[in-house]
Amino acid sequence: MRPQDLIEKKRDGGELTRDEIAFLIRGYTRDEIPDYQMAAWLMAAFLNGLSETETQALVEEMLHSGEVLSLDEITAPKVDKHSTGGVGDKTSLVIAPIAAACGVAVPMISGRSLAHTGGTLDKLEAIPGFRTDLSLDEFRVVLKRCGLALIGQTHEIAPADRKLYALRDLTATVPSRPLMCASIMSKKLAEGIDGLVLDVKVGNGAFMRELDEARKLAEMMTSVSRAMGKRAVALITDMNQPLGRAVGNAIETAEAIEMLRGNLTGDFAELSLELAAQMLMVGGITADIAMARSQARAAITSGAALERFRAVVEEQSGDPRVIDNLHRLPQATKQTVVTADRAGFITRIATDEVGRVVMSWGGGRQRLEDAIDPSVGLHLHAKLGDQVQAGDPLVTAHYNDEGPREEMTARLRAAYLIADAAPNLELLIKEVIE
Amino acid sequence: MRPQDLIEKKRDGGELTRDEIAFLIRGYTRDEIPDYQMAAWLMAAFLNGLSETETQALVEEMLHSGEVLSLDEITAPKVDKHSTGGVGDKTSLVIAPIAAACGVAVPMISGRSLAHTGGTLDKLEAIPGFRTDLSLDEFRVVLKRCGLALIGQTHEIAPADRKLYALRDLTATVPSRPLMCASIMSKKLAEGIDGLVLDVKVGNGAFMRELDEARKLAEMMTSVSRAMGKRAVALITDMNQPLGRAVGNAIETAEAIEMLRGNLTGDFAELSLELAAQMLMVGGITADIAMARSQARAAITSGAALERFRAVVEEQSGDPRVIDNLHRLPQATKQTVVTADRAGFITRIATDEVGRVVMSWGGGRQRLEDAIDPSVGLHLHAKLGDQVQAGDPLVTAHYNDEGPREEMTARLRAAYLIADAAPNLELLIKEVIE
Repeated sequence: MRPQDLIEKKRDGGELTRDEIAFLIRGYTRDEIPDYQMAAWLMAAFLNGLSETETQALVEEMLHSGEVLSLDEITAPKVDKHSTGGVGDKTSLVIAPIAAACGVAVPMISGRSLAHTGGTLDKLEAIPGFRTDLSLDEFRVVLKRCGLALIGQTHEIAPADRKLYALRDLTATVPSRPLMCASIMSKKLAEGIDGLVLDVKVGNGAFMRELDEARKLAEMMTSVSRAMGKRAVALITDMNQPLGRAVGNAIETAEAIEMLRGNLTGDFAELSLELAAQMLMVGGITADIAMARSQARAAITSGAALERFRAVVEEQSGDPRVIDNLHRLPQATKQTVVTADRAGFITRIATDEVGRVVMSWGGGRQRLEDAIDPSVGLHLHAKLGDQVQAGDPLVTAHYNDEGPREEMTARLRAAYLIADAAPNLELLIKEVIE
Repeated sequence: MRPQDLIEKKRDGGELTRDEIAFLIRGYTRDEIPDYQMAAWLMAAFLNGLSETETQALVEEMLHSGEVLSLDEITAPKVDKHSTGGVGDKTSLVIAPIAAACGVAVPMISGRSLAHTGGTLDKLEAIPGFRTDLSLDEFRVVLKRCGLALIGQTHEIAPADRKLYALRDLTATVPSRPLMCASIMSKKLAEGIDGLVLDVKVGNGAFMRELDEARKLAEMMTSVSRAMGKRAVALITDMNQPLGRAVGNAIETAEAIEMLRGNLTGDFAELSLELAAQMLMVGGITADIAMARSQARAAITSGAALERFRAVVEEQSGDPRVIDNLHRLPQATKQTVVTADRAGFITRIATDEVGRVVMSWGGGRQRLEDAIDPSVGLHLHAKLGDQVQAGDPLVTAHYNDEGPREEMTARLRAAYLIADAAPNLELLIKEVIE
């Protein structure tokens, strides 16, 4: 078998066999197939697509390129959640403790912020001392003790994906449904989980802009999961505005802790409770969604979820005092308020632009090696459909770098569209795909 | 400008500007853009195509990636010929001396055999001592003295093409019309020529199987040439059987010398005389094609072309005694005759397979770094339309390696289709495109 023949086959619209996919992925992971051949194949796959069978083979080969965790020593059902990425999405920080408090074990391996989207690891690391770089052995211990553990991708898990993702990032082959599906599913299935809840975001702050695209990706991922004998459910959720009111690392962690303390208002709490309830369903804790929702809510009101979070912060070397005193999170030195320049209804928020402002102001990263400032963030006073008067605050920005302030506030103001008529609001949870 | 943005633009079907093409080609030639990004761009260009403007820009950037010869010191019109590659195509060895004998200077930079196709350099090097690796200064001297010079691509000429071609070969991006056009034209226009005759082959021994494809490539190349102020004419010619009766290096050189000595029978002579006549037209030696044809023929019958060939062999360190004694060319130690297994008409010859048999038996190369055995070759007794009886010879194979003899003769027999009815024969010269 020669890589160029497999490139040619995909170039001409053919379907690769399982053995051919295996040859490509194993060869690439072992550095036997050079980047340039894989790049040509990825572009051919991007443009000509991959069949279901090819996608399934790709997932399995990427999954088995590294260690596949066995968590048999943990008797609780093991369920994780994955989001395709959005702005202000800090749900992982609350749903992992909720699910753990309800009897699900959550072995969560998360990512970092990239471009306009945030990442769970960066939010967790806003807590002084919090370690996300646990070894797999430490990960097991924390999971056993707390019912949840929150780490970053390790070298042992799906090395093919790490290599492929870096290549895709530089060759404009990221936004391909089967390639995205394979990247996500190979990492998640390596966690030794029994089931998975997928949050597929759609809207102007998501990677997918169209409902139809999101639905196809959701169907692809749940189908791959089923084929691997894992339960999965996908929620298609709105990302036409940041989730909740906080965008940035420390500020989002604070918002998550506020929810764990009992604040159940707004879209962030609504989505988190639903995702957590779905985790209980997938984990088989209950077969009744109404019951699952009420258990999730009870984990907040009883304080059980907050205690799970405190436990995991302690186990992962974080300072648990932040939970009682949010001022112990990194604080920016400066604040500025962006106000409405006219009266009306908030009709549109350029969500990706809001995310990019945080990134450009130091709170995110353009490239994975960039350093970030966890204290940079935005508090959104106005959300879609809100009625405002001229001069009302839209956003309070927390920042340290005075230089780009004028540009940033102008960009934030421009990101809000205020119109005379109240807009039709999108459903937060659009579809549930099993 | 970032390479990934230009990859994305081509991926999404956009048209790159001249500056963007320049950024890519210059960056790649200087090793600033890595192979994997260029490979992704090439595959996107392969699948989404390149516009006329993009192709023109690509040719010019590749042309100017290296030295562009100026041959102003030579007052004769400077004309070269290029073939898109076939089996048994030794026309360069005769038309360069014919054209030179008729007053055209022929600064010919040729290629090597690859896969099933032959290459002029390998045929020339079958002549003991013949050097194709002249420096550009030596090349000028030979051209001035003989009216022709025959060398291989040097490091100074179109280095972007050399780098790109090697990458395309390994990433299944060779057979793309605009990429082929850019590769051919950037090298040819760097030769300092006034005009060019293109032999675009179509058929089962050519890279292009369909007349329509060949016509489009021919139109693209003549149009690029015109845009650069160079006269060009393209002949679309049949490659549904090997040209002439010899396939292999030494054996083809012998056939070419036989033509120079006066053998003007068969398709090889017919095509060579027409290509040479077109070179005289492009060079402005005459404006009348009938006159051009008769001048070309006279260069053979007078012996003038043979003397030009003898001169260039001497100038390029070859042994001129081969011209009078073809047995001084490398001779294989063994021969075997493949015979017809039934009576009938030769209806189809799998031309590419005939070429591959020579290659597999040691007479060609799979990869550019492979060594070749110049004495391996085939003599075709039967050509398309010939009537044969069972047991009549089809092919005599000249070889050294006994091992694969049975396999090779079986492949040669299978390459000939013999049927009851006489086939319709294709025109040798199908179209002339100016």
